[in-house]
Amino acid sequence: LCFVFPIFASTMKFTLQAADAQSKARAGILETAHGTIETPIFMPVGTAGTVKAVHQHELVNDIEAQIILGNTYHLYLRPGLDILHAAGGLHRFNGWEKPILTDSGGYQVYSLTEVRKIKEEGVTFRSHIDGSKHLFTPENVMDTQRIIGADIVMAFDECTPYPCDYQYARRSLDMTHRWLKRCCERFDATEPLYGYDQTLFPIVQGSVYRDLREKSAETVASFGRDGNAIGGLSVGEPAEEMYAMTEVVCNILPAEKPRYLMGVGTPVNILENIALGIDMFDCVMPTRNARNGMLFTRRGIINIKNKKWEQDFSPIDAESDLLADRVYTKAYLRHLIRSQEILGAQIASLHNLHFYLWLVGEARAHIMAGDFHAWKNSIVKQLDERL
Amino acid sequence: LCFVFPIFASTMKFTLQAADAQSKARAGILETAHGTIETPIFMPVGTAGTVKAVHQHELVNDIEAQIILGNTYHLYLRPGLDILHAAGGLHRFNGWEKPILTDSGGYQVYSLTEVRKIKEEGVTFRSHIDGSKHLFTPENVMDTQRIIGADIVMAFDECTPYPCDYQYARRSLDMTHRWLKRCCERFDATEPLYGYDQTLFPIVQGSVYRDLREKSAETVASFGRDGNAIGGLSVGEPAEEMYAMTEVVCNILPAEKPRYLMGVGTPVNILENIALGIDMFDCVMPTRNARNGMLFTRRGIINIKNKKWEQDFSPIDAESDLLADRVYTKAYLRHLIRSQEILGAQIASLHNLHFYLWLVGEARAHIMAGDFHAWKNSIVKQLDERL
Ligand SMILES: [Zn+2]
Ligand SMILES: [Zn+2]
Repeated sequence: LCFVFPIFASTMKFTLQAADAQSKARAGILETAHGTIETPIFMPVGTAGTVKAVHQHELVNDIEAQIILGNTYHLYLRPGLDILHAAGGLHRFNGWEKPILTDSGGYQVYSLTEVRKIKEEGVTFRSHIDGSKHLFTPENVMDTQRIIGADIVMAFDECTPYPCDYQYARRSLDMTHRWLKRCCERFDATEPLYGYDQTLFPIVQGSVYRDLREKSAETVASFGRDGNAIGGLSVGEPAEEMYAMTEVVCNILPAEKPRYLMGVGTPVNILENIALGIDMFDCVMPTRNARNGMLFTRRGIINIKNKKWEQDFSPIDAESDLLADRVYTKAYLRHLIRSQEILGAQIASLHNLHFYLWLVGEARAHIMAGDFHAWKNSIVKQLDERL
Repeated sequence: LCFVFPIFASTMKFTLQAADAQSKARAGILETAHGTIETPIFMPVGTAGTVKAVHQHELVNDIEAQIILGNTYHLYLRPGLDILHAAGGLHRFNGWEKPILTDSGGYQVYSLTEVRKIKEEGVTFRSHIDGSKHLFTPENVMDTQRIIGADIVMAFDECTPYPCDYQYARRSLDMTHRWLKRCCERFDATEPLYGYDQTLFPIVQGSVYRDLREKSAETVASFGRDGNAIGGLSVGEPAEEMYAMTEVVCNILPAEKPRYLMGVGTPVNILENIALGIDMFDCVMPTRNARNGMLFTRRGIINIKNKKWEQDFSPIDAESDLLADRVYTKAYLRHLIRSQEILGAQIASLHNLHFYLWLVGEARAHIMAGDFHAWKNSIVKQLDERL
């Protein structure tokens, strides 16, 4: 096999199109080698090179996803770097031709692996699949993300748990900043492998401590990368603390660059953080909760396992333009989820992802139209209702 | 909700269109209330009202399925008859608008339930889901299939295991024949519930004993139903014994009515039985084996888990017109199946079902063209190859 790689000239470009007068919400266009992303945007999580239970053509045509996320930790373990390199990167491996962002694996190393040791050099851990021993360093994680070939790659950081005592958070943050320097040096000293440009986003940490978040945002901003991320939130802290930290950080991160809030969150979390100036989101919630029968809708949350849906033969979501929402009934989906049928996971995942993309699309439309603030305050009252 | 049911005038109609000169193969058209089926045909198995891992629109558009099968045992237990009745039958419950055939639950009662007792009245068993106790009789299984609302319903029979001693097979067959009489009486004494016609197929049993199969085929034929089935094969006997029994039975069952061979089989089994005069097939093999990574192709069988596919970035099946076969690679599907990702089951199920429908479609085209025998003898040499 012989691959001919097109040459992509541009580096990433972000253009602000509109800003809400009554909040910090903004709408923009993010241009990457694999296409354009309209922000604010939600990125479906494609853990091991697949958004669970969803076909790539469904992501494009039904969900209208513009960018998906891959997990470096999972992809590194399986299929592994040899296969991804031989394929010509993740885009060619999984057939997803639009933009991809990869996390750095840090979060999974801390949350999925049992035996792990954090040192200045990096983190040693054992695979959750076969117990084999591995070392992630800022340098080799950059190399790994070069091989995966994501359009946007993330710095290797320590994601602190919640709660986290101040001294630990402060020391961890200092190391995360030293690691960031090493990430940037390695990334800038290496070339993309597949002929298109990649960009590196640094990550603000600092737990729920205002001064640490400020210091981290200033440090991160000083690196002058194409975009910036906020990590270590939505890890168990109250929503108010999350919003407070987002606000502190967004006041410091440069307005002309995209801001990515990692791992967030519920539909309400997403709208509130858009109002604080966030442009990009990812979260496993729409797909993971789908597999357990939790559906997000513009009217509120449906637990499809509840007996009340047993003989409800109305469409899953009559207000949705998704085919699956209109042709399948609530009673049928309830049956599928209760019977642990794969089709239940397929339908519910399609529904939730389509809803998340609809939600950020509506947010964007209202920012452009100038009435985001009123729309947001109205809809957030419904989104958490239990139907 | 108010349902208006159209009135379907016709009972089922079968029209033979062509017969192969060098074998017993035939091509026909089977007309039902929910549409027309071109035979020979393969029916994907939709156990609990869903063909596992496949959307209904994929069955229609990608796989080009013309009829699917539902399992009375599974549907009776979950979602249960109240819900199916309230929905207006299985077609309305799952949104599949083409023909449906339901088995009688006999096979599942014998194979899935542990505590079961077969008496003249019927079979008592415990649910594999919650251990609850149930009784299936010829009469209540007819009533259940009225409620499910399949276009073609099957008689309640005892499906004998292999091997089965002659005396047991003979006594079981006599009871199956008495049950068949009770099935027909109940079915003919009841009306369809949803305004369209249903038809009942009796089942030939008799294990691998030629005289029992002959006697059963004669008995079954004497009931003069719209179509006839052959059960109790593909339960572990050598393929040669299966073909011998099919031949014996097809020589007796009326040629002008469709013949359905239950639970068969591999691609080669299907072609050999088409050559013996079978018109309809169902089997869990294409979907079940798909989930384990076994792919059927016109060149032979692929075990996608094998290391040889690890870096094979060619399409899953370049000769197929299925989108999934062309856009996903063997290496990617291998990764998905090894990682137990749902998308792997989705892709492999689509592939295998599409292949099975392609195979019977090709068989039909060759019967119509008059060269079935030569084509079949040529392709069966490839189908069992291990790639
Ligand atoms: Zn839409
Ligand atoms: Zn086709």
